[in-house]
Amino acid sequence: MALIMYDLAGAQANRRFSPFCWRIRLAIAHKGLEVETVPWRFTEKAAIAFSGQDRVPVLVDDGKTVAGSWKIASHLEEKYPQRPSLFGGAVGIALARFVEGWNDNVVQGGMVRLILIDVFAHIHEKDRAYFRESREKRLGMTIEQACAGREERVAGFRSSLEPLRTTLRLQPFVAGESPNYADYIVFGSFMWARSTSPFSLLTPDDPIYDWRKRMLDRFEFALQALGYDA
Amino acid sequence: MALIMYDLAGAQANRRFSPFCWRIRLAIAHKGLEVETVPWRFTEKAAIAFSGQDRVPVLVDDGKTVAGSWKIASHLEEKYPQRPSLFGGAVGIALARFVEGWNDNVVQGGMVRLILIDVFAHIHEKDRAYFRESREKRLGMTIEQACAGREERVAGFRSSLEPLRTTLRLQPFVAGESPNYADYIVFGSFMWARSTSPFSLLTPDDPIYDWRKRMLDRFEFALQALGYDA
Repeated sequence: MALIMYDLAGAQANRRFSPFCWRIRLAIAHKGLEVETVPWRFTEKAAIAFSGQDRVPVLVDDGKTVAGSWKIASHLEEKYPQRPSLFGGAVGIALARFVEGWNDNVVQGGMVRLILIDVFAHIHEKDRAYFRESREKRLGMTIEQACAGREERVAGFRSSLEPLRTTLRLQPFVAGESPNYADYIVFGSFMWARSTSPFSLLTPDDPIYDWRKRMLDRFEFALQALGYDA
Repeated sequence: MALIMYDLAGAQANRRFSPFCWRIRLAIAHKGLEVETVPWRFTEKAAIAFSGQDRVPVLVDDGKTVAGSWKIASHLEEKYPQRPSLFGGAVGIALARFVEGWNDNVVQGGMVRLILIDVFAHIHEKDRAYFRESREKRLGMTIEQACAGREERVAGFRSSLEPLRTTLRLQPFVAGESPNYADYIVFGSFMWARSTSPFSLLTPDDPIYDWRKRMLDRFEFALQALGYDA
């Protein structure tokens, strides 16, 4: 039986933009498994109440429900050990946690103030009030204020990516010769941007730009997903 | 035959403060090997000319010379595979590169402007002109200017450590249940500070403070090394 994943969608049902859901779609592809995704909007809490919490990704695997990207990745690694490893062992798991901490703070945290206004433009009508209120409360400013001056501020964002750039000058993927969950964490954030925003986060001379292209070339469903080639 | 390592020293021969040399002393201890360290100063280029370059650490292992912290760590891992692994496999090596990129940019790069004036105070008389000139050229300002206002700026440094903090809330070491080279990279920077500076980089309520203590408790020679308990 194919896996079922509840996947955040925008105004268009095939606009899938959650960075956490992207991590899992890539992890599932890494394992060579098939998944059926169910489009889900922020306010459809009832549809995933069976998972005991109110956010996606939610995975249903042969009757077992798992929620949250890290827990789902761990589940996939444990349940399908004979398939390509997502982490490369105990040290790989521990260091992927560090990559996650860095990504969520620096990459995803930095992108919020560059693309949130574009994310908002693609939110489903019924989610718009919820999205604005929850994000503005978290940021302490309006969505429009959060993204003001982004043309000037993007230089600081690019500079903050230097640790990733240094790594990708030495090896083709974060995890070495081929990508693993550490790459999917970071690439998931770039898919969040790609699926919602025409704003250019990277310049073509950046090793990170080349890495993003290598990832898109490897994962056809990411390359073909509804979004912007920015 | 014991390993021999050329190790940066200050005005006092037993003040060892190079973060890169610390990484290797910890890596050697991890492998359960013995090392004889040779105190070395910046201007003693002739003493390590045999290594074909002019910086430490330089390791001499049974007649073979290896220079540079990453190359030495790789050498130790390859030459002593039956001893505890420094990296935990291919993915561990690749992700340690990312930790190195982050540490060198954020941790060590951030510490420069907080402790350099204290490092300078411990430099050997014959290295002082070289040290001041090379560092001031790199920074584009005097050592004194670089460290001005550090009491106010340390908050920004602490905030920049959030990815490490997030990781250490989830597990005792960067590499998981026990430390490996990823920990030694970051801890080497903290040993650079400990061996030269009374300035408090961390607050006692910080998970990173606890990790640093765990590392000191594990490596008696680091705990006992000449320095400051800041």
